[in-house]
Amino acid sequence: MDSRTGLPVVGMVGGGQLARMTHQAAIALGQSLRVLAQAPQDGAALVVADVVIGEHTSADDVLAFAAGCDVLTFDHEHVPSEIIRLLAEAGHVIHPGADALVHAQDKGEMRAALAKAGVPGPPWAAVSTVDDVATFGDTYGWPVVLKVARGGYDGRGVWTLSDADAASDIIGPDRAYIVEQRVPILRELAALVARSPYGQAAVWSIVQTVQEDGICVEVIAPAPDLSEALAGEAARLAVQLADDLGVVGVLAVELFETAGGLLVNELAMRPHNSGHWTIEGARTSQFEQHLRAVLDYPLGATTMTAPWVVMVNLLGGPDGGMGIDERVHHAMAQWPDVKLHLYGKAPRPGRKLGHVTALGDDLVEVRARAGAAAAYLREGGRR
Amino acid sequence: MDSRTGLPVVGMVGGGQLARMTHQAAIALGQSLRVLAQAPQDGAALVVADVVIGEHTSADDVLAFAAGCDVLTFDHEHVPSEIIRLLAEAGHVIHPGADALVHAQDKGEMRAALAKAGVPGPPWAAVSTVDDVATFGDTYGWPVVLKVARGGYDGRGVWTLSDADAASDIIGPDRAYIVEQRVPILRELAALVARSPYGQAAVWSIVQTVQEDGICVEVIAPAPDLSEALAGEAARLAVQLADDLGVVGVLAVELFETAGGLLVNELAMRPHNSGHWTIEGARTSQFEQHLRAVLDYPLGATTMTAPWVVMVNLLGGPDGGMGIDERVHHAMAQWPDVKLHLYGKAPRPGRKLGHVTALGDDLVEVRARAGAAAAYLREGGRR
Repeated sequence: MDSRTGLPVVGMVGGGQLARMTHQAAIALGQSLRVLAQAPQDGAALVVADVVIGEHTSADDVLAFAAGCDVLTFDHEHVPSEIIRLLAEAGHVIHPGADALVHAQDKGEMRAALAKAGVPGPPWAAVSTVDDVATFGDTYGWPVVLKVARGGYDGRGVWTLSDADAASDIIGPDRAYIVEQRVPILRELAALVARSPYGQAAVWSIVQTVQEDGICVEVIAPAPDLSEALAGEAARLAVQLADDLGVVGVLAVELFETAGGLLVNELAMRPHNSGHWTIEGARTSQFEQHLRAVLDYPLGATTMTAPWVVMVNLLGGPDGGMGIDERVHHAMAQWPDVKLHLYGKAPRPGRKLGHVTALGDDLVEVRARAGAAAAYLREGGRR
Repeated sequence: MDSRTGLPVVGMVGGGQLARMTHQAAIALGQSLRVLAQAPQDGAALVVADVVIGEHTSADDVLAFAAGCDVLTFDHEHVPSEIIRLLAEAGHVIHPGADALVHAQDKGEMRAALAKAGVPGPPWAAVSTVDDVATFGDTYGWPVVLKVARGGYDGRGVWTLSDADAASDIIGPDRAYIVEQRVPILRELAALVARSPYGQAAVWSIVQTVQEDGICVEVIAPAPDLSEALAGEAARLAVQLADDLGVVGVLAVELFETAGGLLVNELAMRPHNSGHWTIEGARTSQFEQHLRAVLDYPLGATTMTAPWVVMVNLLGGPDGGMGIDERVHHAMAQWPDVKLHLYGKAPRPGRKLGHVTALGDDLVEVRARAGAAAAYLREGGRR
């Protein structure tokens, strides 16, 4: 408890943009988020008052950080389960806990749990050798998708293989992998839910996500032309998973829409790129909701604030011949109603530097506006 | 310029809730607000990474703070003009500048400038003796309103006097005062405008403000049943004043609506309590707009996000027999769509501890919802 404010203290392990945006939400709740960052120039470390520099893979660092926090939560999935269990044994409250979080850390654990729960996913297998991959591909058909079980993100650690030979360049002896059938998909969707320790759950509108090279580039809320039946199924599936896995906080369920229905692609247990649109686009943002959930506060309303909300990620592009400050000037002049979110990162091609959000009544216009603003911010006038 | 982000650095003098909420907006713009606070427990100092502790009345402290800031601005009007001039002479960019800010610092200067600009206000006079007050009251009628020229706020430094004798308890030798006719008013309104150095101006919807004991308790956007003609006049008047006075940043014009039209009551040159509703209620909040203005960025759209938006201040109340954390739990459960803003302050009766905002289509329902949530947060279930 913060004696200055009479309110509990939330500690977030990880100092990236998710912690940065969670801090914005924390301020309104009278909180001051405590952040364990790796470096002073991390996006959240630049703006948060209460920053500890340390390694999330060091039990000592994480235990020291936890002292004085009423609840611990995460901006990423990279804290080892052993450390989370040590924290719990030391009496700390951690949301999500190790037994839930492992399903967002390890794709093998995730696929096994989904299969047990009867939640649909693509055919898959845990593999450790090229022969394993060959057997799977010969059974389910090529190409297949090979993934590292732990540590992949934004398309890294994911390979599409047209034959078993291709696996021999990738598979190493000390790493766990899974292989999945490459299912023909109509599009990707995401279902975002928050769940509190009390068991209250709240779902946002189901969104469509657009990926390029394995990186999310655009999110459309709600997913256009999604049938009420499928939207309901996605929402039920997210709530069921949050409950079955014992998630506390935000759970993002990445989905494939296929001709045969929905399949679960990935899980994340933290605020997620597919929910950035909620900052302006929903009555309660995913960042505020995550805080409410881990604090066991009642959850806020998830109703949308406009018929259509589109978020476009701002990825680092080629040097556009002008600095970011000049590009911000021009973009603000041309799109006075597009909301800008910059993460305080040094630009690097392909890096997520920020995002923009547009809202409105006409999906075509809203998408065009958000896309044009993001393109200008990325590349200046050079397109 | 912040070499880490390639973006300019804004320094805000004063560490109260306005700086706290400006920081929330700064985070989205890729900024990290720099704050000069008086104490580490100031509302903004609790949440801002880059805090300097010092006195805004010390030229040394303010000059040291200004080093490395691309632009300086204020969370209050209490920085002496001499210090602002020193800063300007040292080459710092300050918005608003000393010549503009004096009209928000000194009610005599404000009244003189408004008279010169032909902007309507109540009859007034600068006074320094009880005899001066007596002469004014005998000319314009009793009661009169006596105000300290500098330093009053939230009803402090303002007295309604029914005769000259009452002034003798108040007027001291070393202080400047003004006296104003107590004009019969229909209600209070506020016009909020932002102006950039380039001269761009953007006005939000004209609001009604409700005061109790000289403290703003509720703001209704837009002002109900305000004629289009009066709303237009209020907006024009705010833009004209911002331009005439050379304001850069947000200017709040507190207005009296009278049977004879609008009169200017007070000016503030910073984000203002009458604009807190813009956080959720307008496409661009007053905090983001203030930053855009002082950075000479193009201004954002000020369109409302709902037909009705009501903000109710959360003033410190009697000890309700439960802590703020418990009251927050209950209020969140009952009003999942009311937005809460807590300022990190220790409770004290009458102190502004936060505010709540509700939005919707039905003014009566929106007012009731915001009012009930604020009352519960203040007093728990004891009403």
